[in-house]
Amino acid sequence: MIDFTIPAALREIRDRVRAFVRDHVLPAEPGIGDPVTDRDLVPLREVARAAGLWNPHLPAAYGGLGLEPTGVALVQEACGVSALASLALNCMAPDEGTMHVLLDHGTDEQRERYLRPLADGAIRSCFAMTEKEVSGSDPTLLRAMARRDGDGWVLDGEKWFISGADGAAFALVMTVTDPGAEPHRRASLFLVPTDTPGWTVIRDIPTMGTHLPGGHCEIRLEGCRVPADALVGAAGDGFAIAQGRLGHGRLGHAMRWIGLAQRALDLATARARDREAFGRALAGHQGVAFGLADSAIQLHAARLMVLHAAWKLERGLEHRQEVAMVKVFVAEALGDIVDRALQVHGALGYSADTPLEAAYRDARAARIYDGPSEVHRMAIARALVKASERDGSTRAATGSVE
Amino acid sequence: MIDFTIPAALREIRDRVRAFVRDHVLPAEPGIGDPVTDRDLVPLREVARAAGLWNPHLPAAYGGLGLEPTGVALVQEACGVSALASLALNCMAPDEGTMHVLLDHGTDEQRERYLRPLADGAIRSCFAMTEKEVSGSDPTLLRAMARRDGDGWVLDGEKWFISGADGAAFALVMTVTDPGAEPHRRASLFLVPTDTPGWTVIRDIPTMGTHLPGGHCEIRLEGCRVPADALVGAAGDGFAIAQGRLGHGRLGHAMRWIGLAQRALDLATARARDREAFGRALAGHQGVAFGLADSAIQLHAARLMVLHAAWKLERGLEHRQEVAMVKVFVAEALGDIVDRALQVHGALGYSADTPLEAAYRDARAARIYDGPSEVHRMAIARALVKASERDGSTRAATGSVE
Amino acid sequence: MIDFTIPAALREIRDRVRAFVRDHVLPAEPGIGDPVTDRDLVPLREVARAAGLWNPHLPAAYGGLGLEPTGVALVQEACGVSALASLALNCMAPDEGTMHVLLDHGTDEQRERYLRPLADGAIRSCFAMTEKEVSGSDPTLLRAMARRDGDGWVLDGEKWFISGADGAAFALVMTVTDPGAEPHRRASLFLVPTDTPGWTVIRDIPTMGTHLPGGHCEIRLEGCRVPADALVGAAGDGFAIAQGRLGHGRLGHAMRWIGLAQRALDLATARARDREAFGRALAGHQGVAFGLADSAIQLHAARLMVLHAAWKLERGLEHRQEVAMVKVFVAEALGDIVDRALQVHGALGYSADTPLEAAYRDARAARIYDGPSEVHRMAIARALVKASERDGSTRAATGSVE
Amino acid sequence: MIDFTIPAALREIRDRVRAFVRDHVLPAEPGIGDPVTDRDLVPLREVARAAGLWNPHLPAAYGGLGLEPTGVALVQEACGVSALASLALNCMAPDEGTMHVLLDHGTDEQRERYLRPLADGAIRSCFAMTEKEVSGSDPTLLRAMARRDGDGWVLDGEKWFISGADGAAFALVMTVTDPGAEPHRRASLFLVPTDTPGWTVIRDIPTMGTHLPGGHCEIRLEGCRVPADALVGAAGDGFAIAQGRLGHGRLGHAMRWIGLAQRALDLATARARDREAFGRALAGHQGVAFGLADSAIQLHAARLMVLHAAWKLERGLEHRQEVAMVKVFVAEALGDIVDRALQVHGALGYSADTPLEAAYRDARAARIYDGPSEVHRMAIARALVKASERDGSTRAATGSVE
Repeated sequence: MIDFTIPAALREIRDRVRAFVRDHVLPAEPGIGDPVTDRDLVPLREVARAAGLWNPHLPAAYGGLGLEPTGVALVQEACGVSALASLALNCMAPDEGTMHVLLDHGTDEQRERYLRPLADGAIRSCFAMTEKEVSGSDPTLLRAMARRDGDGWVLDGEKWFISGADGAAFALVMTVTDPGAEPHRRASLFLVPTDTPGWTVIRDIPTMGTHLPGGHCEIRLEGCRVPADALVGAAGDGFAIAQGRLGHGRLGHAMRWIGLAQRALDLATARARDREAFGRALAGHQGVAFGLADSAIQLHAARLMVLHAAWKLERGLEHRQEVAMVKVFVAEALGDIVDRALQVHGALGYSADTPLEAAYRDARAARIYDGPSEVHRMAIARALVKASERDGSTRAATGSVE
Repeated sequence: MIDFTIPAALREIRDRVRAFVRDHVLPAEPGIGDPVTDRDLVPLREVARAAGLWNPHLPAAYGGLGLEPTGVALVQEACGVSALASLALNCMAPDEGTMHVLLDHGTDEQRERYLRPLADGAIRSCFAMTEKEVSGSDPTLLRAMARRDGDGWVLDGEKWFISGADGAAFALVMTVTDPGAEPHRRASLFLVPTDTPGWTVIRDIPTMGTHLPGGHCEIRLEGCRVPADALVGAAGDGFAIAQGRLGHGRLGHAMRWIGLAQRALDLATARARDREAFGRALAGHQGVAFGLADSAIQLHAARLMVLHAAWKLERGLEHRQEVAMVKVFVAEALGDIVDRALQVHGALGYSADTPLEAAYRDARAARIYDGPSEVHRMAIARALVKASERDGSTRAATGSVE
Repeated sequence: MIDFTIPAALREIRDRVRAFVRDHVLPAEPGIGDPVTDRDLVPLREVARAAGLWNPHLPAAYGGLGLEPTGVALVQEACGVSALASLALNCMAPDEGTMHVLLDHGTDEQRERYLRPLADGAIRSCFAMTEKEVSGSDPTLLRAMARRDGDGWVLDGEKWFISGADGAAFALVMTVTDPGAEPHRRASLFLVPTDTPGWTVIRDIPTMGTHLPGGHCEIRLEGCRVPADALVGAAGDGFAIAQGRLGHGRLGHAMRWIGLAQRALDLATARARDREAFGRALAGHQGVAFGLADSAIQLHAARLMVLHAAWKLERGLEHRQEVAMVKVFVAEALGDIVDRALQVHGALGYSADTPLEAAYRDARAARIYDGPSEVHRMAIARALVKASERDGSTRAATGSVE
Repeated sequence: MIDFTIPAALREIRDRVRAFVRDHVLPAEPGIGDPVTDRDLVPLREVARAAGLWNPHLPAAYGGLGLEPTGVALVQEACGVSALASLALNCMAPDEGTMHVLLDHGTDEQRERYLRPLADGAIRSCFAMTEKEVSGSDPTLLRAMARRDGDGWVLDGEKWFISGADGAAFALVMTVTDPGAEPHRRASLFLVPTDTPGWTVIRDIPTMGTHLPGGHCEIRLEGCRVPADALVGAAGDGFAIAQGRLGHGRLGHAMRWIGLAQRALDLATARARDREAFGRALAGHQGVAFGLADSAIQLHAARLMVLHAAWKLERGLEHRQEVAMVKVFVAEALGDIVDRALQVHGALGYSADTPLEAAYRDARAARIYDGPSEVHRMAIARALVKASERDGSTRAATGSVE
């Protein structure tokens, strides 16, 4: 039955997350600044644990709240107003994705040894897939290789823009293991502790975004030897696991973007309400009002699309098309909403005196990471063509509940 | 609980409407053309009645299916692929709106005398609010007047762009009754049979859209005397009733637009799949593929926004902001989607050989009728400012379920 | 030397064309309507001849004013406010293009027998290149064939959307003559009198646009025999000649579009100035004002781009990239400007009571004919890549005067 | 006569500026970084002087090249590829504007004492108009005051976002001198040496842009006493002088933006040419190709609009409308072009490994400084309405040469 009611238990958690953000995260923001270090997070994490908000996305067995995707969506939205909030709750990329991978595909030993300390916030991790020389959008081009060596594997190659790598305790590394297999079965995923000889962080690549713990690093793997049990899932499962991880990961990002967009619209509306020019409040100028309205519409549509995709994920329904549409739409909505909010603040918005300046720089990455918008648009179109061939209509590929 | 499942009973009705449209309406289209007359509809209406699809929006007491707004939404979407379909089911503007007004505000006698034959499809009606000389967007400027005359009222004024007026049996006419009242209490609604002396259809205004029964007419009211019981609701209720009517009416339009947009996207995808240029199917050209993807995304967002607003209407929750966002977003999505579909067909799309040519002309009106996008954007922005003042956040005005 | 001054002699002609349009064409418009027939034009053409404005684009030897491309640009812009104006001056597509082709590539006899009566306005012509079954955007796919037959040629095939064909005295027909040649040398151009056995106008395809003399027709060529001297230029020159024709033709269209866009902006501004809503003139509402401003900016840019391309054409400089950029930009600017002008008129703009309704329908074709925007964008990008390879910069492909 | 030819002498200078940028500025860029200090510029300035490129915008009497506005436009475009280039040639905001003000309105003594060392590059200046508490877009709201005090004046107030203030030798300060005058005669301009007691740089406001010498500062004026001859122009001339300064200044910015946009498009095209994905160069993907084409079109239009406005300025023709259109269009074109260039580079574009990352942050300011786009759009619309009233057409306000 079509229903948009949020269950009371979930609303209660969401409201507590909002209160945590309002009372603890936002006041901490000015003192933390950029870059954000692991140390900066310690006090916030203590409060979060004490407040019973730690690990919203994990089962109780790992000290989590056991929320389903729609619940996680609401929590992540509440977190999105500040990059610090998800970090404080331990549900931020890339660790959130790592935890999902190990929960779903890890062995008992991998879970005990790596998932547990990650869930406890004792260590950090990273996911090493992207390479510089080949399009990250076309994973069949991966060059990093793992060859069998006795019982184990030896990894060689270069990885690039690996978020969180600096200071991570271990990495999930995607490498080709069978170059002759069909493209999506060529690669496998390895769990590589970062103290393994041959793993080197070459540099932390400077970007325009807020610097979160671990940065975005360039990595070299040179004769990096791992044992047989370093494999996550089976050999050849690499892409399938990465895809699954990205489902959760992209929704997580989209949810946080909505929270950030909401904050930007709140700031824009408050400014338009309070600032005067040409004899009236800015909000009384139709051009400004139109911008606020457009932001509200995009935000509303974005939120519904995320909830819908999370619901499909939760019900075990096919959701790739919905997640792709979310990735494209929400990333662009965020960009538009932050841009308008900045503009309504004029020079003040361009300065670091408001959070919009950082939001603008951070938002620009949303159209690139976890697959650039171009690649998702291509995938969406392919699904439309397939539905058209199969059903004589594209309905099933446009989110219609059939 | 957040749920997008369509109940089985509703899905069954929707699927029967789809089958009716596919098997009866689309095949009838070429033989009917433009203009569409009342007579053209007779055979389709017979089939619709026989199929048990008549009056989806009305209670059983009026021979209807008794669907709630979310159900009506799904039926109207299925109808939207052809202007003929809603006409065939008797759930098309302006009559659908008239029926809602009489159901909610009519006296028993008004319902018996006017709603019943309307529900039976025996007569047509119109809603006479807009005036040429003043902005329809600003109803406080209305000039048509009704003055008391003994027991009854005498109406004078001019109305413009009154859909369905030519051939209508009666009109609901909005006129000022108390010029000194506060703006939104100045006007009242009268039920005026069109054979009342003083009611004249001056002309049927030519437009670029498909000509549906009754056209869009210019009306003169000159000493048009009606009895006391011609009043619908109380004196001064005019705006409030019109607003209520527009809630249903705008959603009805939006639902049909989604159906039309779906048809346009289906045609575009089929064309892109089958047509070759420069050595590949059009769909293999990234620019074309991006257009398909953008249409799918807009359609998906539009559908969710309509379902959400219908759900709020159904639950009796405040829904004006949601309906305004739907009106703006879906009208523009329709325009974009039809435009892209036409372009992918090239000259063929510009010709009357596909339904896209008429869809393009019809779609242009969507940004104008039932309030131009500009007026809705202003209303949306005002609600944002109010929420900001009240809550310190605009969340409640951006569709967030709180 | 960079100079935007219009020489006095040219300004004088342009001002006389403007006066002709204002005093004769616009007053004739309401009496002519749609479709426009050859007969409708007779009185206007007489006035144009008497006023010394006939054939602005032709040399004096053909009774013309002998204007260079920048001069023609200014005249066509003045004509653009009404489809009737260029027809009245005999400088409208497709005849204008035919005249250029025969002037540049015709034999003396072809010029005497076909160009002269065309220049006199005694007959009409058409240009038969497009085919339905293959993408008009990819001319290497043409299927219509001409095979040698004794001294002459026999033409077979189907043509589609051939403007002006109904009632034309002759056609320029593009057919494949050497399927084995390299793609751009495969086709040739033939001059085919329409009373040649085997030439059939199957139907005049209905479109949403204003119907000008001759329509847009579907043509069948069936064993259509023409003599050896029916060839225009040499065998294999077809594409080269068509490209040359399109240079003039696209600029001609773009110039007229600017005139039409100027009229739309004039109407929009007048409406915004005179109409009130919410206590102020529409122009005092910032959203409306922004729309006017954006239209002005697009119009300004469009005019400069056309003048620049015309100047390059006039000087014999390479101008294909500039013409392609003009085709894309001006067609879209026209669409935007007319759309905004319609919207500012509300329902009135959607009605046939203003010329904007027809302008909206006509403007939609601009993104399709003479090459859809997609094909021009691809060509522009290819030129950028070539310039990048050659110069290490794209400057020469972005209109920079080097 | 309409002519786009660049005179040989001018082309020669432009080509030398290009060579200077290519051979000296770009190689120096990596070693300079952000912030840029006065000291960083010394070696580049020496080369520029030696190359005879110093002060392109000034007359020979001040050691300049004596170029007219179209010449300056070409030089500034060549400089725009790097913020360092205009600084190296001494033709960068805010000093370029200050020089124009003193040239046009300064007394002989002011010129000798302040313009000469500025022209020599010995000192820097700033222009203190904007205030935080009131909309910079509405200069009639200025609060800073100057009151007569004996022979001189005493200035009080706060200024905000004053570019170049930190380290400037003097400021041109706009303050109210006659609050009762009609709005545009209320303010006057004072030349204030920054060692005047009462002038304080409170802080250098952090922004997202490249930090150029002097930053963007917050200033306090507290009992700041200046002599009578500190007045620039007459009392009440403040706005008129500021407007004149902005004509040159806005064109200067627009020219540099075009140079920067050209660089971004060059980088995007090279990347699209060389990078492969999904079996082809990126440029072979239509979506990418369309983006390149759109950038080329915007760049082309932008360049023509700037040349046209510079030509009007040069000829002493009314040019405010043209400059406003340039300001809006070129700022937005720059944003779009840089955004697309960044996107085509993916994560690399987001990193500081290419100049696009800084270009993206810098470009965002273009829609704000020297008047936000909103204010220019309002002014453009007002001019359209005025032309409509005066001429019955908006032609004269859309750049048409009448």
